[in-house]
Amino acid sequence: MSFFDRLRSRCQSVSSHLCVGIDPRIEWMPDDLQAGDSPDERALALERFGFEILDLVADQSACVKPQSAFFEREGWRGVRALERITMEARRRGVLVIGDVKRGDIGSTARAYAEAAFAHGESGDMLFDAVTVNPYMGRDAVLPFYELGKDKGCGVFVLLRTSNPGAVDLQDSIVEGRPLYEHVAGLLGAWAPKGDLGAVVGATRPGELEALRRLLPDHWFLLPGVGAQGGTMRDAAKSADAEGSRILVNVSRSIGHAWRTSESETSPADWRDRVRAAAITFRSDLEDAIEARR
Amino acid sequence: MSFFDRLRSRCQSVSSHLCVGIDPRIEWMPDDLQAGDSPDERALALERFGFEILDLVADQSACVKPQSAFFEREGWRGVRALERITMEARRRGVLVIGDVKRGDIGSTARAYAEAAFAHGESGDMLFDAVTVNPYMGRDAVLPFYELGKDKGCGVFVLLRTSNPGAVDLQDSIVEGRPLYEHVAGLLGAWAPKGDLGAVVGATRPGELEALRRLLPDHWFLLPGVGAQGGTMRDAAKSADAEGSRILVNVSRSIGHAWRTSESETSPADWRDRVRAAAITFRSDLEDAIEARR
Repeated sequence: MSFFDRLRSRCQSVSSHLCVGIDPRIEWMPDDLQAGDSPDERALALERFGFEILDLVADQSACVKPQSAFFEREGWRGVRALERITMEARRRGVLVIGDVKRGDIGSTARAYAEAAFAHGESGDMLFDAVTVNPYMGRDAVLPFYELGKDKGCGVFVLLRTSNPGAVDLQDSIVEGRPLYEHVAGLLGAWAPKGDLGAVVGATRPGELEALRRLLPDHWFLLPGVGAQGGTMRDAAKSADAEGSRILVNVSRSIGHAWRTSESETSPADWRDRVRAAAITFRSDLEDAIEARR
Repeated sequence: MSFFDRLRSRCQSVSSHLCVGIDPRIEWMPDDLQAGDSPDERALALERFGFEILDLVADQSACVKPQSAFFEREGWRGVRALERITMEARRRGVLVIGDVKRGDIGSTARAYAEAAFAHGESGDMLFDAVTVNPYMGRDAVLPFYELGKDKGCGVFVLLRTSNPGAVDLQDSIVEGRPLYEHVAGLLGAWAPKGDLGAVVGATRPGELEALRRLLPDHWFLLPGVGAQGGTMRDAAKSADAEGSRILVNVSRSIGHAWRTSESETSPADWRDRVRAAAITFRSDLEDAIEARR
């Protein structure tokens, strides 16, 4: 079964197009998950945070998206924590999008794809899908796409990102249109049947409908809702005619929903707040999609 | 001391502008380094290969460049092997360029930069420099650059890559020039004093001199010599007037110099062949630079 078929079926079975980011930061760790300052204890805190988030949001989410950077920061022990969280997520039936944004070529790209989809000697899947950077062109994308097809795993290519500096390259005008639309054209050419996803920031709602017209059959992974200012209504605009083919990611506003800029400590009910945020974002998203149909 | 000052001093002290790639592949492992098929044994083989390469090439090389993908493919144990090789390289005084090609934004980019330059609780440096992807713009580059300045670490931004598919995005014409020249302009604006390096493939010699004119003060890391077809003469064309500010990377043609497409086994003298290749590439490079002065 292809990744996008698995994704569609998961979205239907939980009635959710929500993806919850898992971005554990040592500095923002809830008080009762802090373990200590040794390398092993720091990695243990990351692992605990990931397991807690899974427990709180799995039934609300189509996918979770662990951000590799926050694990890599703690070295190999952090990477081990990421692998354990990922295995637990897959045991629970939640699809895992590894937010790795890798981009390299040829046999190196193949090795990264194997790291994600056919790990080590066992050849087991680590992630169900990953994010990939297109700057190096087809050689950076197709090795993931091809191994993914064999393994039932998926790829989301960075198209239009949600950050202010996205304009530096992505807004460059190429043959009368911005570079990100040129990249959309490449995606359409590489995967005319739509079996290659795109990362499209939800912070610029005006662009979403135009990109959907360019790529009617491709799944969009939309970051930027919540802390970055995008709304569920904006994101839902890029759903297809059946109200599908979108996956809206929320990270900080769910996983750290309890955190205010003033507070140094976590409230005793932080778990309730995380779960309440996941429920609210999920229902806002499904309502916004329904309103569009 | 800034990374680029450290790099210049290292190039002078070993009379070398050579960077040797460390790309261990389980399938290509010399017979006497193979350990077995368990996850621990596979990671041990990677580690042994890295230590052997260091032993054979350290005195010929300004830098080594481990390719993260080949370690990540073996999971957290592979990452641990990479960390050990890196520590050993730094103990020997060889600078280490982590070929990670990361690209993300804001606090995530900062976390990746910390993974490279200020690791875990100790805050130790893992890599002396890393490669970074510019597709997401300044937000993806400056967090590395700024932490790097604090720590004496460096950044090489992908500008023009050596692969065939590089044309898909990088040759797009933006305001009358290819996108990679537009990115060169961004680099010049972000780091007018030249303290931000660029990755420039040596497979298209015609472009090298043009890029050097655009970025007279920036260091270039040049992949593509050897297996990919670039030559030391081509690469040397991008040296500055003093015959410096270039670092030429050779991976397969040194680390796997002994390997032919026919042979399944490694020759008994594979170490001699690796060392001989490093000596030859180094002296060819320094001769080519000298001939240009």
